[in-house]
Amino acid sequence: MDSPIDHYLQRIHTEIADLKDGKPYSSIPAMANVDPDNFGIVLAIADGYVYEIGDTREEFSIQSISKPFTYGLALADRGMDDVDAKVDVEPSGDSFNEISLAEGTGRPANAMINAGALTATSLVRGSGGNSRFKRILNTYSAFAGRQLSVSERIYQSELKSGHRNHALAYLLRSFDIIESDPTPVIEDYFRQCSVMVTTLDLAMMAATLANSGRHPLTNDQVLDIAPVERVLSVMATCGMYDDAGAWMSSVGMPAKSGVAGGTIAVLPGQIGLAVYSPPLDAHGSSVRGVAVAQRLSSDLELHFVRAGRTGRSALRGSYDIGTTPSGIRRSEEAANVLRANLARARILELNGDLLFAGAEAMVRELASLDDDVELVVLDLRSVDEVSGVAMRMFAEAAHMLAEAGRSLAVVDAEGAVAESLMEDGHDVQAFATRSAAVEWCEEELLERHAAGLVQPARILPDDSPALAPMGEELAKNLAARMEKLTYDDGEVIRRIGQRFSGVYFIASGHVQTLMPGPDGHRVKLNRLGAGMTFGEMALGEDRRQETTVKADGAVEVWRLPAEEIADLEENEPRLAMQFWRALTQDAYTRVEQYLRETAVRVQD
Amino acid sequence: MDSPIDHYLQRIHTEIADLKDGKPYSSIPAMANVDPDNFGIVLAIADGYVYEIGDTREEFSIQSISKPFTYGLALADRGMDDVDAKVDVEPSGDSFNEISLAEGTGRPANAMINAGALTATSLVRGSGGNSRFKRILNTYSAFAGRQLSVSERIYQSELKSGHRNHALAYLLRSFDIIESDPTPVIEDYFRQCSVMVTTLDLAMMAATLANSGRHPLTNDQVLDIAPVERVLSVMATCGMYDDAGAWMSSVGMPAKSGVAGGTIAVLPGQIGLAVYSPPLDAHGSSVRGVAVAQRLSSDLELHFVRAGRTGRSALRGSYDIGTTPSGIRRSEEAANVLRANLARARILELNGDLLFAGAEAMVRELASLDDDVELVVLDLRSVDEVSGVAMRMFAEAAHMLAEAGRSLAVVDAEGAVAESLMEDGHDVQAFATRSAAVEWCEEELLERHAAGLVQPARILPDDSPALAPMGEELAKNLAARMEKLTYDDGEVIRRIGQRFSGVYFIASGHVQTLMPGPDGHRVKLNRLGAGMTFGEMALGEDRRQETTVKADGAVEVWRLPAEEIADLEENEPRLAMQFWRALTQDAYTRVEQYLRETAVRVQD
Repeated sequence: MDSPIDHYLQRIHTEIADLKDGKPYSSIPAMANVDPDNFGIVLAIADGYVYEIGDTREEFSIQSISKPFTYGLALADRGMDDVDAKVDVEPSGDSFNEISLAEGTGRPANAMINAGALTATSLVRGSGGNSRFKRILNTYSAFAGRQLSVSERIYQSELKSGHRNHALAYLLRSFDIIESDPTPVIEDYFRQCSVMVTTLDLAMMAATLANSGRHPLTNDQVLDIAPVERVLSVMATCGMYDDAGAWMSSVGMPAKSGVAGGTIAVLPGQIGLAVYSPPLDAHGSSVRGVAVAQRLSSDLELHFVRAGRTGRSALRGSYDIGTTPSGIRRSEEAANVLRANLARARILELNGDLLFAGAEAMVRELASLDDDVELVVLDLRSVDEVSGVAMRMFAEAAHMLAEAGRSLAVVDAEGAVAESLMEDGHDVQAFATRSAAVEWCEEELLERHAAGLVQPARILPDDSPALAPMGEELAKNLAARMEKLTYDDGEVIRRIGQRFSGVYFIASGHVQTLMPGPDGHRVKLNRLGAGMTFGEMALGEDRRQETTVKADGAVEVWRLPAEEIADLEENEPRLAMQFWRALTQDAYTRVEQYLRETAVRVQD
Repeated sequence: MDSPIDHYLQRIHTEIADLKDGKPYSSIPAMANVDPDNFGIVLAIADGYVYEIGDTREEFSIQSISKPFTYGLALADRGMDDVDAKVDVEPSGDSFNEISLAEGTGRPANAMINAGALTATSLVRGSGGNSRFKRILNTYSAFAGRQLSVSERIYQSELKSGHRNHALAYLLRSFDIIESDPTPVIEDYFRQCSVMVTTLDLAMMAATLANSGRHPLTNDQVLDIAPVERVLSVMATCGMYDDAGAWMSSVGMPAKSGVAGGTIAVLPGQIGLAVYSPPLDAHGSSVRGVAVAQRLSSDLELHFVRAGRTGRSALRGSYDIGTTPSGIRRSEEAANVLRANLARARILELNGDLLFAGAEAMVRELASLDDDVELVVLDLRSVDEVSGVAMRMFAEAAHMLAEAGRSLAVVDAEGAVAESLMEDGHDVQAFATRSAAVEWCEEELLERHAAGLVQPARILPDDSPALAPMGEELAKNLAARMEKLTYDDGEVIRRIGQRFSGVYFIASGHVQTLMPGPDGHRVKLNRLGAGMTFGEMALGEDRRQETTVKADGAVEVWRLPAEEIADLEENEPRLAMQFWRALTQDAYTRVEQYLRETAVRVQD
């Protein structure tokens, strides 16, 4: 099946191909004979996937689209302050080849006009055996994800015709804005303008900017986020020459155009767009390039004002652990103590990308918790990205919770947040599942509020909650038919596909159950502790084990073997009946627990 | 517990209070005697929650911060094109009281400088018995969420001292940019500048812009999204006078300042910030206002380039229904057919806010599905916001799936997406839970690939999958002890808290199970169909019903009453044993199903 996005781009391409206004750039002889009908559109997603239509593999010179990338490299080489001292970040309101130097200092208005671009080129360092230009070319290539090269013909032609840029460079030298011999600077600047790219290259370069400076396919961090932020800011206000305001209003994406007909636009975090069509408007921008960007921004809501909607529902739920009990059965007394103290343990369920707004929702909820809350569980299983500010908020929250005498647990399959907090010296419990975190909360609450009633670390099968409904005598009778087994950390107790071999009662330690996930790799299902059972799942139609069960630390289990069960059913049907009834109850306690776990997500 | 954000703002307030540069505005006598130490900061979240520190309830005149709001009202009154004909959207590079009219036409550069602001005021209509100024004041009040008023003293003082604005207005009149008598325009302009606000008011006004023009507390849609987008675009490039580029680079939020010391900044979708501190810098902006905005942007990563990261993980999973089977037991033959055709039914699980990038991930996956996929389930239970473009993508996808002969099902607790698709004439199945959608897929696959093997619509209890392990004879024996019950749509069959009354077998129709959710309101747990059982959950420790079970359409159920079960246990222990064992197996089939449902979310 074709993608609707391909269809959409085809439609846009056909419609905008009718736009015949403008003329290709003709001031440089080597660029004069271009086919004005060349027309390519590439929409690259921030993860590197591309949609393309038209002449997207045709090469042309990058021209002024080189400016933001050289500026970025200069910022990385010299630091923000040193570059700012030489080049301002203000829209000039002038066209690309205006002089626009500040009175007195000679500082160019920004790095997107020629004067600022020449200065940026002069600020790039040669290093590590690579000349300045070699480093510029390598940077462009890293942005594009392939080795780019210079058109010697266009370079020579530019060098011969670029009188105005020669003048600019000498003027900048006279103000000491360019501090070295201007000739090599002019040469490198013309070389960078003559780098040959395709629409696809430009789209990948734009997508790398959209992806915080990391090329989405090579995974190369070409530029750090700080210079990327600066480059995109300057592209936003100064990228489209004297059209800055109209561009921001109608397109709302940082952009840059070049006189060879290229145009790029970047929606941070989302897309890189590139268009190639040589005929230019009066501002020196591609007529169709501008039209495509306007059209896509409007149709696909790519304007930065629209794109910013995030994190409004980062806090998906906040509730006490009574809503999602562990399902562990306890003595009547312990259960009563727990019931009276459930509100002291609170779960906050977070979701999506955590930017400031999401983190704010979390700390707002934390700050408003009742005074008697002692334990806080942050359930991060549905969180995608944790921004720097969100991570700092986690640290602040951990600190304030500790100050208030509260304990913090984090549920996080990947564990990155908990790990980072622990590295910073915060006292945090980390769990892979919410059930495990709730179990910890229950134990903590019992320890704090009824020290005597804490579940013993070792629960023999005749004390197992699963068998409790049978009464003590029958449970002892059953226990006498069991065998004790011990396992070391990581040992497999039951493997997926094995035949039903009996019901296992965990006396001490923990086991982990695993199965193949939707994408083929293994997923953890849950962690079971003392007093819980496993093995019954192999009771299914083909009586085979559906999960792998592994020891998580040293484990002692007691097995009621399948043969003993068969013998019971034959000779002691009343005891067998009690046994199965008890297991049915136990199973439905778990069904209910899982229903509650999923219910949080299906509210209406 | 205090919020770490309150602590943070306190720290920033203390630190930046040390900044003593600048002088309060003194050109208007009525504004001259202000306390330069007044200093308030309000950070309003897009949902209306506010953090405030300092003199946030002190009133001062709004001055130029009125400009974007009047401009928005003019855009709403006259439409984009008519306003654009009178006022451009380009940064002027000039200070606020520069003339900045275009040569020849006299068109002001933008609506944030005085010339453009006077023009915007002239474009607002009087209507519905309200004068132009009354409508302006009402709009500001709606943005603030409370009735604002004018300081007559400041107004009179402005009117007397504002010679330059008088000159501007007459100049604009001479160019026919202002088309009516300039005097009432000047008066209304000075009145709008003299509207009294607090820092809190300004923060709510900014938050309303951040919230797409809807006041987050009153829920009033003060301005449509299109003019809001335009206003924020112009604030981004022209809001901070000749500092536009530096502002975009260092703060990256659309903003506006006023000479009385107010400053607002807006991060679309996230926050509205307001600061009040009278001493001004050389550009006429509040020294501390600028400092606070810069500091918060940097510390909290509020720059639009950072804030844009969304939708990268919108597609949470894509897998066939074999990963999450319905758990309905079928004949060996039907089960085989199903197993051979599982890959023909595909689930795409989506997540978070669906902007373009998220919708793109979905259609990309759809376009890449194997040719033999016949059924597509979009699981939207974790989706928060569906943007306009995402909704159009859903429609496009529905259309293309239909063209390719594929059927579409949507899992969506709220049902809005499915409803909208159906209204547009698309053929869509809607479900509240994934289990229900999977059940539908299984039935469809059986109908298409083994028409004879479809589960009959009515399953009597002796044919129930739950009792299948007992063998036909014992199942019939049990069925003879059951009673038949029928219910109409919506009738409650079992209510939460009721005592265990037996095990229910669904013969035909569906039931819905519900329980109180984490936030107190009811949540749907799941929908059960013919051949499935309920009531066993009341087997828990206190033998009470844990969920409410309601008929979803007409339902026929068969109940094995609690008394019959007790009688069986007493007199036919072997049959009772077989019964409980069968139920244990059935329960663990469900445990396994739920484990798989949650496992999708805990991959490592």
